[in-house]
Amino acid sequence: MEYETPLFFRVMAYAADADRDVIDMVSGNPDWEPPATLREGLREYADFDADRFQYPPSEGLVELREEIAARRGVDVEQVVVTNGTGEANYLAMARAMERDAGSEIVLTDPVYPYYPGKTTILGGEQRFVAAASDGRLDPADVREAASEETAAIVANSPNNPTGAVYPAETVRELVAIAEENDAILVSDEVYDHYDLSGRFASALAVDSAHRIVTSGFSKSLAITGFRVGYAIFPPDLVANAKSRHMLVNVAGSRPAQYAVLRALRETGPDYYEANRELLRDRVDAFTNALDAAGADYTRPEGAFYVMARFEGYPGTLENVERLIDEAGVAGMPGEAFGASREEWLRFALVTPRVEEAADRLAAYFE
Amino acid sequence: MEYETPLFFRVMAYAADADRDVIDMVSGNPDWEPPATLREGLREYADFDADRFQYPPSEGLVELREEIAARRGVDVEQVVVTNGTGEANYLAMARAMERDAGSEIVLTDPVYPYYPGKTTILGGEQRFVAAASDGRLDPADVREAASEETAAIVANSPNNPTGAVYPAETVRELVAIAEENDAILVSDEVYDHYDLSGRFASALAVDSAHRIVTSGFSKSLAITGFRVGYAIFPPDLVANAKSRHMLVNVAGSRPAQYAVLRALRETGPDYYEANRELLRDRVDAFTNALDAAGADYTRPEGAFYVMARFEGYPGTLENVERLIDEAGVAGMPGEAFGASREEWLRFALVTPRVEEAADRLAAYFE
Repeated sequence: MEYETPLFFRVMAYAADADRDVIDMVSGNPDWEPPATLREGLREYADFDADRFQYPPSEGLVELREEIAARRGVDVEQVVVTNGTGEANYLAMARAMERDAGSEIVLTDPVYPYYPGKTTILGGEQRFVAAASDGRLDPADVREAASEETAAIVANSPNNPTGAVYPAETVRELVAIAEENDAILVSDEVYDHYDLSGRFASALAVDSAHRIVTSGFSKSLAITGFRVGYAIFPPDLVANAKSRHMLVNVAGSRPAQYAVLRALRETGPDYYEANRELLRDRVDAFTNALDAAGADYTRPEGAFYVMARFEGYPGTLENVERLIDEAGVAGMPGEAFGASREEWLRFALVTPRVEEAADRLAAYFE
Repeated sequence: MEYETPLFFRVMAYAADADRDVIDMVSGNPDWEPPATLREGLREYADFDADRFQYPPSEGLVELREEIAARRGVDVEQVVVTNGTGEANYLAMARAMERDAGSEIVLTDPVYPYYPGKTTILGGEQRFVAAASDGRLDPADVREAASEETAAIVANSPNNPTGAVYPAETVRELVAIAEENDAILVSDEVYDHYDLSGRFASALAVDSAHRIVTSGFSKSLAITGFRVGYAIFPPDLVANAKSRHMLVNVAGSRPAQYAVLRALRETGPDYYEANRELLRDRVDAFTNALDAAGADYTRPEGAFYVMARFEGYPGTLENVERLIDEAGVAGMPGEAFGASREEWLRFALVTPRVEEAADRLAAYFE
């Protein structure tokens, strides 16, 4: 079996090994601070009684599940705390597949590369629906691709890599299409706290037994390395998902769950708003410099990423490595996200040096 | 799809909800202290720069993999750090299955219940080989069960639940049987630091492209809730296992990995020896009281467990719940470990009250 291994780690390693100063815009690793209370949670953990160093409940600390359920307006029994949003998506897609109601997974092109890889390890087939050049997804195209062979439709809003935020109308339609085809909409909402448009619509707003919502704290609390995510299942689907979670991982890491719980309880809206403001400023700075360089780009409505295109410089891995060596800017090859973005590069706005990066790109492509 | 959900969490919940004082001997949660340096590692983490809160390498922190490789005498490239030994076993069994060299998994009876469940989610078929009443495994029986349909043989020594420690001869034979059938021996050695017999033999001692060794720090450092384990793959099998790990979990939790690294580096042999000594004392205390009660039992050569049998009291879930309510002792039903142990109960020696527990059992069955 051949997997499509995501290229992130390979590009990051190449950038780290370069002989020159490189501005790293490869991965979705926030460079801003996690909440102070999250650090406090770890510090506190160090002094807990030894029994707190043992297994948490498999589906996650009760208080954390309650906190998530209250915030998302669902029953606590529907919530499974996972080893990051990555595991949440794996569980959701597996749960959709094991209903024996089709083995195709409908994905968008461009696509977050882990989804096709997960499809493969689950024995499913990928079916791609093209998004518009600005990232918009036309539900009519999804409806055309969906059939009784469809096990799941995986959607991600705010979207990585396009930055699109799907309007409520689109999300409603995606749930309807899942229902019409006895499929499951897997709605990955991990960037929900980075909606820059004010238009973000969660799939939870559409009551249905055919949608699973995944999310996590890697982005919202700036802790991609802690691995705390969650999935919200319809009541009829949750039991088997909990079993799979238990059989694959037993449980997630408990100190990380506790630190997230403290941060959730004690972090006010200012923290999240300040990070959105930081991102808005970076979007402006980076895209202004891209304008000056005469590059095509998509202005994100949410998430961390700008896709850009430079005349005569396709988004191959080879060109990304050349850009690291010759321009000192590391991005991701567009081809990693699908055929539709082969001409493009993706830049993550996770460095204070976004303006300098755009200036380097402008100078290089001049 | 129906999974065999391990019963641990259900029995623990029942014991916790009981109206009376219950001595909890259900789960393999050590009640002894983790090393002080592990706590120190968490405390230190709280003050690290924000970049240490982001993704670790998918296969684990480099320094941790190096430390594991040095201790186990393997190349660092063979080591994948996992979300506990549970994920390590999942990856190992999946890797064996995806070679398209058979879909049967040979397991022992009695068996650690997660293995059959993992077999099911991987689409494999279980084939059980009976261990002797004292837990010994006869390689001739395994050879008879193995065939070209065998993808993997899963062995666990020191064994949960029997307490058997397989001699070097047995381990050598198991590797040979895997080789003869183009199968993989998955050797789960998570209790290696709790060998009370001095006879523990790792499968790593037998060089072969047909064995994967899994282990972790849940037991050796008394941190089942941290979720740090590892698998050691033959060079030809490691790449796909890393991809699956990345696609399912992205990475393990970084603060937990760091705390384990510090504990590994700074914890001397005294720590491990003191815990073995504690267990030896508990084995003596518990089995002496069982002798007084006239119960049958197996005296463990390693791991944390004693299997015991009381005349006319089969090891059903119902009887375990009755024992919680009426005797105030919580164990695991033997039937959870396979048909061969339906008459038995398993007691984990993870409480200082083992003698009191045995006295309660003696009084109850008197």
